[in-house]
Order: sequence, then C-alpha cells, then structure tokens
Amino acid sequence: MQPLRVGVCGLGTVAQGVLEVLARNADLIERRAGRRIVVTRVASRRARTEVDLRGATFSLDVADIPGHPDVDVVVELIGGDGLAVELISSALECGKPVVTANKAAIARHGDRLRETAQRQGVALNFEAAVAGGIPIIASLTQGLAANRIDWLAGIINGTSNFILTGMSDGGADFASALAEAQRLGYAEADPTFDVEGIDAAHKLAILCALAFDTGFRFDAVYTEGISRITPEDIEYARRLGYRIKHLGIARRTVAGVEARVHPTLVPDTHLVANVNGVMNAVLVHGDATGSTLFYGAGAGGLPTASAVVADLVEIARATRCAAPPPAYPAPLEAPAMLPIEAATSAHYLRIPSLDRPGVFARVATLLSERDISIESALQRAQAIHAESQNAWVPIVIVTQPVAERVIQEAVAAVQALPDVVGEVVRIRVEDLADA
Amino acid sequence: MQPLRVGVCGLGTVAQGVLEVLARNADLIERRAGRRIVVTRVASRRARTEVDLRGATFSLDVADIPGHPDVDVVVELIGGDGLAVELISSALECGKPVVTANKAAIARHGDRLRETAQRQGVALNFEAAVAGGIPIIASLTQGLAANRIDWLAGIINGTSNFILTGMSDGGADFASALAEAQRLGYAEADPTFDVEGIDAAHKLAILCALAFDTGFRFDAVYTEGISRITPEDIEYARRLGYRIKHLGIARRTVAGVEARVHPTLVPDTHLVANVNGVMNAVLVHGDATGSTLFYGAGAGGLPTASAVVADLVEIARATRCAAPPPAYPAPLEAPAMLPIEAATSAHYLRIPSLDRPGVFARVATLLSERDISIESALQRAQAIHAESQNAWVPIVIVTQPVAERVIQEAVAAVQALPDVVGEVVRIRVEDLADA
Repeated sequence: MQPLRVGVCGLGTVAQGVLEVLARNADLIERRAGRRIVVTRVASRRARTEVDLRGATFSLDVADIPGHPDVDVVVELIGGDGLAVELISSALECGKPVVTANKAAIARHGDRLRETAQRQGVALNFEAAVAGGIPIIASLTQGLAANRIDWLAGIINGTSNFILTGMSDGGADFASALAEAQRLGYAEADPTFDVEGIDAAHKLAILCALAFDTGFRFDAVYTEGISRITPEDIEYARRLGYRIKHLGIARRTVAGVEARVHPTLVPDTHLVANVNGVMNAVLVHGDATGSTLFYGAGAGGLPTASAVVADLVEIARATRCAAPPPAYPAPLEAPAMLPIEAATSAHYLRIPSLDRPGVFARVATLLSERDISIESALQRAQAIHAESQNAWVPIVIVTQPVAERVIQEAVAAVQALPDVVGEVVRIRVEDLADA
Repeated sequence: MQPLRVGVCGLGTVAQGVLEVLARNADLIERRAGRRIVVTRVASRRARTEVDLRGATFSLDVADIPGHPDVDVVVELIGGDGLAVELISSALECGKPVVTANKAAIARHGDRLRETAQRQGVALNFEAAVAGGIPIIASLTQGLAANRIDWLAGIINGTSNFILTGMSDGGADFASALAEAQRLGYAEADPTFDVEGIDAAHKLAILCALAFDTGFRFDAVYTEGISRITPEDIEYARRLGYRIKHLGIARRTVAGVEARVHPTLVPDTHLVANVNGVMNAVLVHGDATGSTLFYGAGAGGLPTASAVVADLVEIARATRCAAPPPAYPAPLEAPAMLPIEAATSAHYLRIPSLDRPGVFARVATLLSERDISIESALQRAQAIHAESQNAWVPIVIVTQPVAERVIQEAVAAVQALPDVVGEVVRIRVEDLADA
C-alpha cells in the first residue's frame, strides 16, 4: 500500500505538532489508517531552521504545495482568510483533499469551498478549526448523526475563558487578567480577535452549519466580547448562584436559527460553569441523546495537531484502493493485562477504633514501617450518622499513592490491632490529573 | 440509490427507540447517510402488539433475521452472551454487517467476533455498547486516532452513579438509595450486574481493547462494586475534599495495562466528581490532546438508539456503490439565521443608583410595565471591590427570560431614571438545561 503523502502549508506551532505526532505515533497511526502517512513537503514564507522537518522537503513558496506531484493531500495551516483560502481552493481544484485548522476561512468562505470540494469529489476536513483536540466536528457529523440537534452552547475561545477564570478566581480586573494571559502566551499582543468574540463567532458559524444546515454564515452571528465584564459583575453573579462564561450559543427555533456569542451567566452547578482556564467545552442537545458534553484542550500545538491528523487518518482510510482497515484492528502484539496487585493508588482508610490514647500513633507507625505516607487525616473524626451511638471513633486517613500489594498488607496489620473494633474500610483515591 | 434494509433482533426499549429515531429523523438521516435507512424486519421471542413497527414485518423467530434476503444489516438488541452471540456470528458469516448494543457479547467474545467480521470483510459496530448516546467508541477509534492513549477513566454505569449521587445528596444508605433507583426504573429487580460492577467491567474491557490494543479481555478486569459504601464514607470523603464515584480506570504502564473497576475518591473540583445521577462520562488522556472528557446519557432507549443509528449511518455511507456523500452536505433549504432581537434570554442587570428610598421600586415598576419578571435581586448590594468608595449603590437584578427587544427598551428606560448614576450593565443568563 502506497503511503499517503502530505504537503503542509505553514510551519507554526500546529504544523510542528503535526510533524511531531506523525513521527512519534507513526506505527499506531499506520495501523488505524491502513497505510503510512508521511509529510513529504513543507512550505512557509519564513524559514525556521530550528524545526526538525522529519525528512520533508522545505520550500519558501507555499503556492508550491497544492499542485506538487509528491503531495496527495494538502494541510493548510497558514490561517486567515486571504492567501490561505486561495491555497485551499487551488488544492481542491487540483482534485486533492484538504485538511485545515482555519476557522476564518471556513466560517467566511465555507459554502464556496464546500461546493468546490463536492464538485471535485474530494474531502475538505476541518476538525481542528473548532475546539482543538476535541472531536466535535466528527461528533456532530457522525457520532450524533441520528439526532435533530435542538441547540448547542460552547466555551470555544480559550483566551476569553482563561481571562474570565482569572477574574473569577483572583478578583483581577479585565486589563490585569488580559496582561497575565499575554504574559503566558494565551493571548496575542493584539487580543481583539479573542476578547471581542470574533474567533468564537467564526467557530460558532461552523458549528451552526453542521448542526442546523444553515450554510457557513459568519455574517449572521451576533457577537459580543468580554472586555466590559468587571470583577463586580463576577462577584454579584456568584452571590446569585452563577458564573460568567463567554459562550457561543446556537438554537433552532420555529422561525429560524439563533446564533450568538456573548458573556453569559450560567448556574454554578452546571458542568459548563466549571470549565476553567484555557479549556474548551461544547454542550450539544440532540432530540435522541439529550445533552452531551465534549470537553478538552481547545488550542495548542499538539491538541490541534491531533485533530489535523485525525482528519488525515479519515482521508487515508477513505482513499485506499482496497477496503479500509477495520476501525479497531486486531492487536499485533497485545500488551499484558496486569493484575490488580500491580496497580498503585492513594487510599482512603476508615478505621473504627477504641477511643483511647495512642491508637492513631500505632496506626501511623504501621503505615510508616511500610513507607506509606499520610496525605491527610481526620483524627477522632466527629461521629456522624449512625456512628454517633457507638463506643468507638473512626480514624480516617488518606494515604499517598502506594502499591496495592503494600496497602493490602498494611490494612491487614491495622486490622489486627487490638484497638481496632470493626472492619477497616479501604477505597481507592484517584486525582485524574493530567500527568 | 437502494435503501439500506435493516433487520432488528429484539423489541425492547432500545429497539423501539431505533424504530422511532429512524422514522422521526428519516430525511435528515438519509441526507447524512447518502441513502434511506429502513427497518424491514423485526423479530422478538415475545410479541408486543402495542409497538408501532413503522411498516416492518414481525416474526417470533429471531434466527430468521441474519439470513433473511430482505435484510442487508443486522441490529442485535437481545443482549446477553448466549443466543445474541450466535445471532451476531451467524449474520457475520452471511457476510452482513452487524450493529449491536451488547456489551457482554463484545467484552467476552469480541476477539472471535472481530476475527469473523474481518474474515468476511464486514463491519461489526458497537457504539451503543458503552456509554449510550456518547460517541466514545468513534472518538477513540477516529477522533483521537492520532493519539497514543495513556489512560482513561469513566463513570460508565448509570445505576451505580445514581445510587452514589442519592447517598451523597440525601445521606441515604446503600439499601434505600438502591430501592429508590429500583422504584424509578434505573435499577433491575436483581441489581447485581450494575451494583457489583460487572456491567462497568464489560464496558471497560471494550474501552481497553480500543484504547490499548489489548484484545477484549473481560476476564482480566479487576471488579469491585459499590454495595459496601456507607454514608459515613461519603461524608468523611467530603470533609477531606473528595466525592466517591464508581469508576472504570485503565492505564498503560511499562509492564502492561491495568484495568480496574472500583469505588474511587475523586477531588471534588474535578469535572468527573460533578457528573451526577444516571449520567455517564469518560475522561481520555492522549499524548497529543491531553485530557478530553465526553459526557452524556449512558442509557435509555433514545440515547442508546442514537448510537445504534450512528453505526447504521456509518455502514450506509461505507457500503454505497458510489462515493459516500460529504460529511456535511450542502443545505437543501437553509433555515433563516435570526437577528439577535429575536432571541429570548434571562438577564443580569447591574444598575448603579443613588442610595435613596424608592429607587428599587421605580426600577421594578419599569420592568413590570413591560411584563419583565424578577427572578432574584440584590437590593443595595453590599459594595464590593472598587465600588466601596462610591456614593452610590448597585442594584443587581436577574430577570425571567424576556425578548431581546423588550429588555433593550427596559434598560433604556431604567438608564434614563434620574436615580441611575452610571451605565446599566446587562449580561445574558442561560440555564443550559435540557428543555
């Protein structure tokens, strides 16, 4: 099977991420795609000698890429709605599928580009244009294909969400929160596109086209940014039981489709209210599924590259001559499935003990002899519920992570203490953090 | 283009949902699939004369379906790992693609069934087997295809999550929370499969096979249920900053793959800790995307049917003779995009006012004259931040939903009051609830 040969226009963070992901996970991607995916050519108006091109040929002329005979599919990562649109158009006219992360191009010129792609019978994929690493485009067009979508609402601009989170957590005003976002690289020197809602409106126009068949209508999206939100409003909203989030909302009504981007008060118990920092989330309400939420990194080189490469995998599968490989190929060499004894977790221990001096110390000694550290504890925990009638008190401990084998032994030892008057309860603790 | 003719085995809630969704959204599904999807035959060992079969022919012999000449694709919705596995096998041997919601069959016999499907060159799809309406299978195999998955963790049994939520919110013990779940139809009369973690272990075995190439290894999943969790543990965990959730966790390590289902303490600020009731969520950590979370209804007739139909759409697209239709076809008749004046929202109003009697009443009158109801208010809101230096006080009001046009007029009227000494701030409020 011939490899799928990719030409990349642009050499910024996302393009570098695509080169890295395709190299790092080459074998795994080949199995899922049914063929190798190889970047043969990269072009950028600015040379970046520090970037490892992983064997691709570099050119300073991006117009080289669409028609180049070594390129089967074009990845457009220049951005903006000028030259980039010409490149996409020209690749489609050459009969080549295109993958792009360019929300402005699709939101503003999507109807025309789609028409060209359909006429040429090639794919135009843009999973990376909305919500970075979250597969929201595929979910709308495939995973939720059985549904009439009633409405959707999303935090689709990480910069605005980072600024609002900063104002909410630290009481900072808009200007300081923006400055912090700029210092950390989450906001541009000219932040207008992000903080005035234009970027979010581009993305909402794309979601609308897919969810409601409106066509790509950036011009019809009502847009308000976050620059007029004050710490006072955030605090009053909090007292009333709300958080302020910058949302893109689109809704099907009898009269037509509403599409609007604006700061919004959301009940503080809602999952969307708890999406913080630069993270994105899209809530989709379908007539069969009800509410479904998709959450993840909305920007950044690797998450966005993940979406670009997913689009390439789809094209590689669809453009093979033979039947595509199964979506879940049989394992070549299955990894071992480990027994529970091999797992490591922090643990919550509840130890029903006689209420007398030294019990906690004896328990702590047994743990420390096995190198088990205590993360937190409730000594002589205030009796609650049914336990208030008992002559004993519970000792409650959360440990640092420890191997299953070790905690099993430790619990057996604690259980054997004469001070312990009931069964020791052990429940695993997981922080589910990124690392 | 010939329609895709579907034979359905089983006529329970999910099968009825499939009939309903295919009928209700027939045109929309046809556009996305590129051809009509029609249920031609339904078989169930028990007649249900009350169900509208939407024109399909009924039979009491489920073994009729796989080989029937009017059936192009078989949907298996009987469940269990006996007869259902034979039906799936026999359909695949007839060279027909199969869609199933059967987690036990796939978790226990998936390797053999996959081998048959590959040998016959047909699809075996089971999006509905894990987390109902959430497109987690497609996300793992396609949307996140560029990633090496490092770990995943999910609330994948709605019954257990409903019981733990009840214990957590109401302080109920396990037995009463279970009884309530049974009363509401969320738990079976014999709840063993759900509360002892077997159902979750089936689903985790499937996620493991897709994420880590382990093959389908239900036998290797460590399984603990929730029946020994007490209200005391939930309360102590809360004091320590955690919620107790029943999780399926799988992780790639150097030695192999850990897969375990057990009650777990999760930091209470984590999104997963805030997934309540019968809802499901799966958190996936990929090397390129970082953490991504997929949330939605994990069971129920319509959400599960949504997943079954999405699998049918994929098969309809892949088995057309001509090229598949574009993933986002051009609109036949695009709905109108509405102006913001057509939108209806609740609103937060912050009104900087002179601190003198009657101001709130004057504002309330202006609102009530326009039929705008007040949902909540902070009268003479305690001054915060910079406002403490001012001679005025803010009146903060959250209204009931009101048309944009009306609130614009009302704000203009309030702004014109002589008591109002600064710009009235207006921010929209959305509850993002299901309705």
